[in-house]
This record gives sequence, structure tokens and C-alpha cells, in this order.
Amino acid sequence: MKNSPILGLTVGDPSGIGPEIVCTATRKIEGTRDCRCIIYADERVIRQSMPCVHETRELNRITDAADYTPGKINYVEVGSIVQDYDFSKVQGHCGKAAYDYVERAILDALAGKLDAVVTGPLNKSALNLGGKHFAGHTEIFAHLTNSKEYAMLLTGGALRVIHVSTHCSLREACDRAKKARILKVIDLANEAAQALAGVDTPRIAVAGLNPHSGEGGLFGREEIDEIIPAIEEARARGMDVTGPVPPDIVYMKAHSGMFDIVVAMYHDQGHIPLKIVDFMGGVNITVGLPVIRTSVDHGTAFGRAGQGRADDSSLIAAIDAAILLAKRKA
Amino acid sequence: MKNSPILGLTVGDPSGIGPEIVCTATRKIEGTRDCRCIIYADERVIRQSMPCVHETRELNRITDAADYTPGKINYVEVGSIVQDYDFSKVQGHCGKAAYDYVERAILDALAGKLDAVVTGPLNKSALNLGGKHFAGHTEIFAHLTNSKEYAMLLTGGALRVIHVSTHCSLREACDRAKKARILKVIDLANEAAQALAGVDTPRIAVAGLNPHSGEGGLFGREEIDEIIPAIEEARARGMDVTGPVPPDIVYMKAHSGMFDIVVAMYHDQGHIPLKIVDFMGGVNITVGLPVIRTSVDHGTAFGRAGQGRADDSSLIAAIDAAILLAKRKA
Repeated sequence: MKNSPILGLTVGDPSGIGPEIVCTATRKIEGTRDCRCIIYADERVIRQSMPCVHETRELNRITDAADYTPGKINYVEVGSIVQDYDFSKVQGHCGKAAYDYVERAILDALAGKLDAVVTGPLNKSALNLGGKHFAGHTEIFAHLTNSKEYAMLLTGGALRVIHVSTHCSLREACDRAKKARILKVIDLANEAAQALAGVDTPRIAVAGLNPHSGEGGLFGREEIDEIIPAIEEARARGMDVTGPVPPDIVYMKAHSGMFDIVVAMYHDQGHIPLKIVDFMGGVNITVGLPVIRTSVDHGTAFGRAGQGRADDSSLIAAIDAAILLAKRKA
Repeated sequence: MKNSPILGLTVGDPSGIGPEIVCTATRKIEGTRDCRCIIYADERVIRQSMPCVHETRELNRITDAADYTPGKINYVEVGSIVQDYDFSKVQGHCGKAAYDYVERAILDALAGKLDAVVTGPLNKSALNLGGKHFAGHTEIFAHLTNSKEYAMLLTGGALRVIHVSTHCSLREACDRAKKARILKVIDLANEAAQALAGVDTPRIAVAGLNPHSGEGGLFGREEIDEIIPAIEEARARGMDVTGPVPPDIVYMKAHSGMFDIVVAMYHDQGHIPLKIVDFMGGVNITVGLPVIRTSVDHGTAFGRAGQGRADDSSLIAAIDAAILLAKRKA
């Protein structure tokens, strides 16, 4: 038990499905996973979501992982929510609470108290209404850990995809497909896939940017000018890299088991196949941070919050990914 | 029998798997489909591929559909191949033959002798080596029918996808996402989906170009400036159009049955989900031509030609699509 990774689970927006799936997920995996899950929330938030999922475990407020008790709901009281709130609504104090939980977990992780942070869903509008002006979790982590060279990795089904760029226009994504960035992302892919696939030399595929990978320069030159030079340098460093593979083929090949991870050139190139393959159980991982961070790959699902019918499979997959990453790092 | 559509099946490159899958596909569907399949090839090409698929049907050379005889291999002698050729090799006279078969079928379709043309796979290098300088079938059809406003439609599994642009760089694809072109493709989508889905008012989804459909202009303005105006005009014309739908969600939704067809903004946006969902049985349809044209969605597979182990499911699906389109037009 001593060495089992300590995971900080933030419940996300209190008004969404986060608190209830944190209850059901920790209950389901109890005794079946080598980890200690500590929930970051307010006691009133956990209590408000407990009835809908018939949660009967005792609450155990802790300040130190040494006080972790199996079979209980172990949580850190963040003390953010002091007013009533409703389920399924954008509310500023709920958005601020979601921020406060994550901030506290990140600080504890940076202080060495947590081996990884697993985040529940937040709502961007509520976050901003609460005075926290971030596009989402990833930006909060980047800001609080002062990170620049990170990347978004998604896993789902047999697919693992890491992105050269994400939240920018498609035109800007073309501009961002530069050798130095691609090489950095190949590096991050290699490191993450070692942990997630459990192999020392992951089989990395790098997708092209253009149709047919540019067909020899006929449909764009980014493959020739940026992608191939990055692949060659990664190979020279000993990595097992294939590519550029035509974008319409590489995900199908990876899904069939030919590659351990795919480097996607832009947001939708990686997101489209991922969501086709596994819409409910996907995991979102931010790599390149000093803190291990995995997350559910869905939103707050306000439409069904507080009703006890939320799907926790993405959260359980995020916990499993955090365990693999934490063990590799240890 | 009188009204069953007459389909011209071109075998594609003689050196590839085309001739053998045309044999196995027509044999398999004999008596189960309401159509008359006439093969466009040379007799020596059909004969060279017959042994590997244990083909024992009699050959019936015809010049008029009235001579079509069920249970036989009905074919039009194109008279292109006069020399020996090998399987599985790029050969100029095979590339030229593939062209000649298609040209003859297109001319017969334009003359009203065929209701549709279904094309087997050709090899671009062989085509060019044979003196026919086209990027592929689509360009041959456009050239011979003098068509400008056509689009590539792919079907596979439960997905139907039509493309605003295809063979150009991703940067140029951004430039081509213009209102007039998008509206034209929505129109073509509506017409094709009426036949393929068998409904009068198909549910059409139009994908965004940028991540999250541009997030209100934050990640690109094409949705606001071009896509939404096109959608609004299509709706004003009575079409059932939803969008712009975020690219990473629309294919998953269509695959789950929410839409009859998706308008994709560029090649890989549509090709990636299609090939994940159905790699072997996909059909490629060129819409907007005066001639109905469906095609296999794979290449000549030189690696397995002449061995009798080629998969004919894409060709059978292409025949089925041609029947639907021909019946709707009739």
C-alpha cells in the first residue's frame, strides 16, 4: 500500500455530473486498483451529490495522505462553496469552486503530496463568470505550473493521439506545424507512450498535414519542409518513428494495432477518429507539465446532473491512465 | 427485367485485382439484385483473371444491352490490350487499357446505353505511363463529361460524407470553403442522399472548418462568413440542414444515425472517419456529373492480384449504390 500512487481527484463544477461520477468511480474501483484516491472538493458538494448515486460510504476529511482510509470517501476540504447552488446551472460560485479545487490539487502535486491530478469536468462559462478567465483546465495547469511546451494527448479504444496544435483556427494550425514543435511533440509522445503502452520503444506514427501527406509537394510542402526533418531527427535520437503517414490511413492503422501512438497535426485530425472510436470512455492527458494530469474527456453534462445516471467510464479510464503515468515516473 | 438498371462495370487496370473482383462480385449478386451488369474490358483480360477465382461462367460478348444474358459474363470488348501483360506490375499498356475501358463506358452512358458506370481500381502511375495524364478516375469523368461542379461522396458503414474540397493542400482547402461552393455541395448532398438513404428530405449536417466550429470567431471566421450563410440559404430552399456542427462531433453523430449525410469541409475531415468506420467496404461516388458514377474505394492491390484472394465487398457496395442512384433518376 505504501507505494501505491496518490491521486488527487477534483470534482469539477459542483453543478455538473463531476461529484457523482467521482463517487461512483472511486466506489467501483475500490480494492481493484493500486492507488489512493483523494477527492478535492467541499464536503457540502460531496454530500449534495451522494443521494442520487446511493452513496453510503463514510466521509473522511484528511489533510495528509497518511490519513487515507480504504473504504471511505477520502477528501480534502477546499472551503470554496459557502452558498447554496443548484444542479445543472451555470453559476459563478460553482465555476470559481471548480477552479479552487484544481488550484489546490496542483499546489499539492507541486509540493509532492500527490503523484497525479485527475480532473472532473468544468464549465467554461461558469469559470469565467466566477472571475477565472481561462479557456479550460489545460490553461490553468499551464499557468499554475508555468509550462510552455505541453501537448494534449487523447486516449480512447485502441487509439492514443497527441496534438501538435489544438485550440486555434485551421489556418493557424498549418502555421504551427513547424519542425521544432513537431519534434518536441514526438518526444512527449515517446515518453507518454512508454508509460501508457508499457513499452520501452513505442511505435510512433506521425501523420501528414495535407491530404496524401502532400503527395510529394503537390498538395502542400509542410511534409517536406517541416515534418520529415522532425521525423529524421527523432529517429537519429533512437525513437521508432514512421511517417509522415497519410492522415486518412494513419488512425485506422493505429486503431488496428500497428502503432502505439499517433502524432496529429491539428485538433480535429486527432479528435475525429478518437470520438468515433470511443465517445464515452476517452481520456484527456496534458503532457509536458511538471505534474501528471489526466482528465475526463467530456463536459459537465448539466442535462443529467444530480440524477444518478451519469457515465463514469471516462473518469475510471482517466484514473487508470494516471496510475500508469505515476508508476512510470516513480 | 425490362426496367432493371444497366450498369457498366469497368475492370480498371488489368494487372490489378479489378478483373477478378468484377468476376466474383457479379457472380455473387447474380439473381439477388435488380440490375444488369455489363463488363467493360478486353476478353483476354477477363480470361487471364478467371482461373484464379475459379470462374466457369460462359462469356457473352455484346454490343447492346438487349443481348444481355443472365448467368453469363456479359462484356463489351474494348479492344485495348493486344500484348501480354503481367499481374501486379505498373505497365503503360495496362494503364492505357484502364483509361480506354472508362472512356468507352462514359461514352455509352452519355449515349443513354448505360444507366450508371461502376469503376474498378486503376493505378495512377500506369495511367500516366500509358500517356493518359489524369490524377484519377474523377478527373477523367469530369473531362469527358465537361463537368465543373462535381463533388466526391464517400459511403461506408452508416456514414455518408461529401466533400467541399479534396485534392489540394490544407491551406488551399481553407480558401476553398466559400459560400457558393458550400451551397452547391449541400445541394448535391441533398440530391444524392435522397437516392442513397431513400428519403425525400435527407437530414444534412454541415461540419465546421475550424475546431469547435470556430468557437464564435475565436478560432477562425469561415463559419461566420461562409458556412452559416450557405446553411441559411439552403434552409430557405427547404432543405433540412443542421450546422455548422463541430468537426470532432459530427461524424460520430452521423455514424450513430442522427444524420443521413455530412458535408465535410476538406479531404481528411471526411476521409478519416470513413476509413475508421469501414475500411474495406467503402464506396466512392462522384456527384454532379451528367453520368452516374460509383467506384470501389481502394486501389489495384498489386500485392495480391491474380491470386483469387481479393475482397470484393467495396465493389458490391458500389454496385448497390449505383442501382439506388439509377432508380431515383429514372
